[in-house]
Amino acid sequence: MSDVTKWRKILRYEGEGDGFSETEAWIAVEYPLTIRVNGQEFATIVCTPRDLEQLVIGFLAAEGVIRGADEIKSLSISEKRGFAYVELVKSVPVDEWTSKRFIGSCCGKSRQFYFQNDVKTAKTVMSRMEISIDRCFALMQELNRESVDFSKTGGLHNAALCSADQVLVVCSDIGRHNALDKIYGYCLEHHIPLGDKLIAFSGRISSEVLLKVSKIGVGILLSSAAPTDLALDLAEDLGITTVGFVRDNHMNVYTHAERIVGS
Amino acid sequence: MSDVTKWRKILRYEGEGDGFSETEAWIAVEYPLTIRVNGQEFATIVCTPRDLEQLVIGFLAAEGVIRGADEIKSLSISEKRGFAYVELVKSVPVDEWTSKRFIGSCCGKSRQFYFQNDVKTAKTVMSRMEISIDRCFALMQELNRESVDFSKTGGLHNAALCSADQVLVVCSDIGRHNALDKIYGYCLEHHIPLGDKLIAFSGRISSEVLLKVSKIGVGILLSSAAPTDLALDLAEDLGITTVGFVRDNHMNVYTHAERIVGS
Repeated sequence: MSDVTKWRKILRYEGEGDGFSETEAWIAVEYPLTIRVNGQEFATIVCTPRDLEQLVIGFLAAEGVIRGADEIKSLSISEKRGFAYVELVKSVPVDEWTSKRFIGSCCGKSRQFYFQNDVKTAKTVMSRMEISIDRCFALMQELNRESVDFSKTGGLHNAALCSADQVLVVCSDIGRHNALDKIYGYCLEHHIPLGDKLIAFSGRISSEVLLKVSKIGVGILLSSAAPTDLALDLAEDLGITTVGFVRDNHMNVYTHAERIVGS
Repeated sequence: MSDVTKWRKILRYEGEGDGFSETEAWIAVEYPLTIRVNGQEFATIVCTPRDLEQLVIGFLAAEGVIRGADEIKSLSISEKRGFAYVELVKSVPVDEWTSKRFIGSCCGKSRQFYFQNDVKTAKTVMSRMEISIDRCFALMQELNRESVDFSKTGGLHNAALCSADQVLVVCSDIGRHNALDKIYGYCLEHHIPLGDKLIAFSGRISSEVLLKVSKIGVGILLSSAAPTDLALDLAEDLGITTVGFVRDNHMNVYTHAERIVGS
């Protein structure tokens, strides 16, 4: 397996008294992976070389190419060459999946989708899961603890699938979206029931992140960072509870507060 | 002009004693802009709605569609509809610019380009600019001071074009790449000489960020965040000085330290 971090010689400036000293630092590895589907080139993702199978499955599902892992006939990855070869059960030419911009209103609602694929794959989340404030803090703390690579390099994002009780799986990537696609792929590969799960995330909540969470089908998103307005409009509409800036015993609940007990 | 931040009602948890209170917070606006070139759809960028003309020019240059602003015959933006209409001097069909993956060695060097466009547009930077440690800290501090929207929302990235003496222009965006494309567009629009300029940046230094800096043609990149290994390999090779974690009177110099006086 490829390394996800590398030692590298650097010059570190330590303040006026000490000046520069030669030292070594852990650096996050960036890895280009080209996905070929049914013999045609589909996309190149720049990612952290770990959980690549999950990444490919999650990416294809997020792009609307597949709905489940069972629509993949075969998937092989050449880590050395940086290629993933996917054969689907159905033979569809790649051109049909090209994202075209699409801003529409859906069922008279306020949803703003800018890609047609999102209209097909984003869904309103009906989860009735509830969680206490204490558990929100505890899960974010556990995510931070498990994210050793992040603190080592300062260059990775982390996403975790959690129940109210514990962190179930953590995926890391230099790309925020990739970390979520890896979680998505994990859920599809292992047929995880999602009605009682949430996602804890180290990155900002953009519209793409929010759409991904809705595609995965999870009702609560916790993040240590900030959301954007478009993400919050979508969250409101797609029934997702968004909680940001979860850190230092503070948090902001932006949408669907009914799932946070005590709010 | 569209707003770049919006007030929004939120529930804020203030710790065990105070519990939740309803309050308002500034949220970063996310805005989808579709670029049409010579009558054909080229790309949709999700961005912060400010400096859109610079963004379009910089984006087209970074993608290798144009080399200078003079290759654009006309550019009009419909902010309300979210479209940018570009007419080029030459009539080239959009299909020719589609990025295909390309990993090659260039002139026997170690360069790893994964898109053909990057091979055409990334260039070795020959700048002989030098800068002192004090100026590095001073410029990053000035960038942070000027980035009011960032501290307001926690959701924006900032890039600044600087001389050794001062910050010349700051561009903000929810997307790291967009902030740099806006700087690139500014340089092309105003024919800025770049041999004595540097870029100060609030985001991580990924390979894409590094390639963009080389396309802009600037020899020094300062960031408050971390780099990736691929970015550093490219920086080494393209002659760019990368300095990361510039904060709290510390910094790491990763490549081409010769431009940092005293290192």
